[in-house]
Amino acid sequence: MANVYELAKAIFKAKSYLASSTTEEKNFALKEIASEIERDKQKIINANIRDVHDAKNKGMKSSLIDRLSLDYRRIDSMVDSVLKLVELKDPVGKIDTGWVLPNGLKINRVRVPIGAIGIVYEGRPNVTVEASTIALKSGNSLLLKGSSSAQNTNKALVNAIKRALKRSKIPSEAVELIEDTSHETVTEMIKMDEYLDLIIPRGGKKLIDFVVKNATVPTMETGVGNCHIFVDESANFDMALRIIENAKIQRPGTCNAAEKVLVHKKIARQFEPLLYERLSKQGVELRGCEETLKIIPQMSPASESDWSTEYLDLILGVKIVKDVDEAIEHIRNYGTRHSESIITMNYENALKFTSQIDAAVVYVNASTRFTDGGEFGFGAEMGISTQKIHARGPVGLNELTTYKYVVFGKGQIRT
Amino acid sequence: MANVYELAKAIFKAKSYLASSTTEEKNFALKEIASEIERDKQKIINANIRDVHDAKNKGMKSSLIDRLSLDYRRIDSMVDSVLKLVELKDPVGKIDTGWVLPNGLKINRVRVPIGAIGIVYEGRPNVTVEASTIALKSGNSLLLKGSSSAQNTNKALVNAIKRALKRSKIPSEAVELIEDTSHETVTEMIKMDEYLDLIIPRGGKKLIDFVVKNATVPTMETGVGNCHIFVDESANFDMALRIIENAKIQRPGTCNAAEKVLVHKKIARQFEPLLYERLSKQGVELRGCEETLKIIPQMSPASESDWSTEYLDLILGVKIVKDVDEAIEHIRNYGTRHSESIITMNYENALKFTSQIDAAVVYVNASTRFTDGGEFGFGAEMGISTQKIHARGPVGLNELTTYKYVVFGKGQIRT
Repeated sequence: MANVYELAKAIFKAKSYLASSTTEEKNFALKEIASEIERDKQKIINANIRDVHDAKNKGMKSSLIDRLSLDYRRIDSMVDSVLKLVELKDPVGKIDTGWVLPNGLKINRVRVPIGAIGIVYEGRPNVTVEASTIALKSGNSLLLKGSSSAQNTNKALVNAIKRALKRSKIPSEAVELIEDTSHETVTEMIKMDEYLDLIIPRGGKKLIDFVVKNATVPTMETGVGNCHIFVDESANFDMALRIIENAKIQRPGTCNAAEKVLVHKKIARQFEPLLYERLSKQGVELRGCEETLKIIPQMSPASESDWSTEYLDLILGVKIVKDVDEAIEHIRNYGTRHSESIITMNYENALKFTSQIDAAVVYVNASTRFTDGGEFGFGAEMGISTQKIHARGPVGLNELTTYKYVVFGKGQIRT
Repeated sequence: MANVYELAKAIFKAKSYLASSTTEEKNFALKEIASEIERDKQKIINANIRDVHDAKNKGMKSSLIDRLSLDYRRIDSMVDSVLKLVELKDPVGKIDTGWVLPNGLKINRVRVPIGAIGIVYEGRPNVTVEASTIALKSGNSLLLKGSSSAQNTNKALVNAIKRALKRSKIPSEAVELIEDTSHETVTEMIKMDEYLDLIIPRGGKKLIDFVVKNATVPTMETGVGNCHIFVDESANFDMALRIIENAKIQRPGTCNAAEKVLVHKKIARQFEPLLYERLSKQGVELRGCEETLKIIPQMSPASESDWSTEYLDLILGVKIVKDVDEAIEHIRNYGTRHSESIITMNYENALKFTSQIDAAVVYVNASTRFTDGGEFGFGAEMGISTQKIHARGPVGLNELTTYKYVVFGKGQIRT
């Protein structure tokens, strides 16, 4: 079993080959990966059965068991996703911009892979394939640290991936899985700044906070979304209800689901009962501010900690605000810079909200659920960034590249 | 004296106002800053005299005393730089790209300020003004942590800046100086991820390493440059000598100065004596690899640690390599991803070098000294980034912005 240091060094070496691989070579490798996973289907499922068995014995929650489980259909959909990546445009080599200096130096700003990326993730084995192939297509090598609960499945998957790479021109060291599942390996991995260019933690707030606090490798924060929908005085009630219902209920466990609704005080008395009726009958627990409870006494009360909580569940916090400014101020204090939406017919308030809200994606009259690489048309996604630098929102192939300047001269010196 | 927490909170609040300030408002503030510094010239010089006096008493090196010292001419040049910023294009609000989804959602990717930035820097008081005004022009608020040796000067400068801001529509809390000069304040500051969006350490390797290791706020690494020039077999010797001389001698203390020359083994016997003659007579100490010493026995020997050292001085390491591949391999192992140059007339080697070298700027037949915001035409510069993510190379106004998606809908929900 190779240690973290050796694996990090291996992907560090592999990144140089990958950086100058052609799109054809990378696509060939992706197709091979799809067929090897297809070929190993039964082996992968057998490995997964062992993981699921162990997880059940350890008393894992059924929602997590579901995330961990693979079946033929899920493997087929993995394979489909890999083949879809083949069709996507390769972001590497694109010249973003270029210019010539007065002295004749020709400057090209060219997109290049970030390099060697580490990903720390939880028990969803499809992330193993998704992350590896997105990384490869964008020219990056990848060090995987999965959950111990999915380790047999991950090994089977990475086994197929590496066998596929061996048949391609991409070195098989371009994807490495840390087999030691102890927690200490995470700490080791996120301090390997000599070899890794970026760490992406994909998981809950605890994992992300741990990585951000301890990493010396630059980190891309993903995923925590305490998303708000502000229903302005001029909102169309039908639209507001439809959007809130969609943003809360369609998939409550995702980071782009709405967690809070802010309601303009002038419409609260009319709007909140409609909201309560519409959502509570679909099993949503609504938690109201003091003012809201005066209108709907049967609602549960929200505590201060509710305003900063990402429920990832059928729970919705509801708060009355004075105006758009108070809504903006509330989001500034409690938001996680993920996705925020205003429902309004007021031009000025739409403009104010979109310009003053600091979030990866700011919506007018739309569901926060659209913050997604697939929906945005990126074709693939490594996660949703909630940090300010490098990339915000959906992280697709392009966001996994950086740039370098290539400067062509004929002997110029600085004077 | 406000503590770090209060100051970080102040610039956090100010960033929201700044983010929606117009270019006119920011330019007005910059002009006011220029005139307030002009007006306070004598006060600033008096404060600087105290700093320089203390530094001399403490036995500071004369090169550092020089960096610390201000005179009328240096203040005039500060003021000029601020006025030049007024003329530069405001990067905020630019729509990088935009598209419409099949469901009619209109997506705009808009450039916005990064937000609240912290800068930790050493004894050059001109950085105080430069960093503050570049941050303001790009819509960012700034928390300054300067060197204790420059503290009187920094206070006088920030005093002028804040007085100017009070006469503008930008809140005066947009620029704050940490007055407590103890080292612990750095540790506190770089962990204020609740309030700060980015930390930029500007200084030596020790400072940068400390910040990278301990910060929880995302960091932009700047400045360490162990830059190489590879003289290929087909190089024009005159051009190579002229470029190396320029890159080594013109300003040896800068991060874009050349620190190492790699020479193709087939030309070493002819080229190295010319290089030795040209540079040693200008006071450069050349340190050679074993093979080089066989050609020029009077050269000092280079030790293993030389290859990874940024001298920032009139010293140059010289090493013979087998070919372009060995040059690339050497740079991969010892380079700092800053600026690397190949001198060649061979098309294939130029292509290979530019595609395989992983650095912010890769040159063909030009001096590494061009890696500079001014030279690149950015007009202003916050430093040179040597990290992979967000920005590489010169960090100008545009690199101090990020983006957000603004999405306009008419009731769309996700299905």
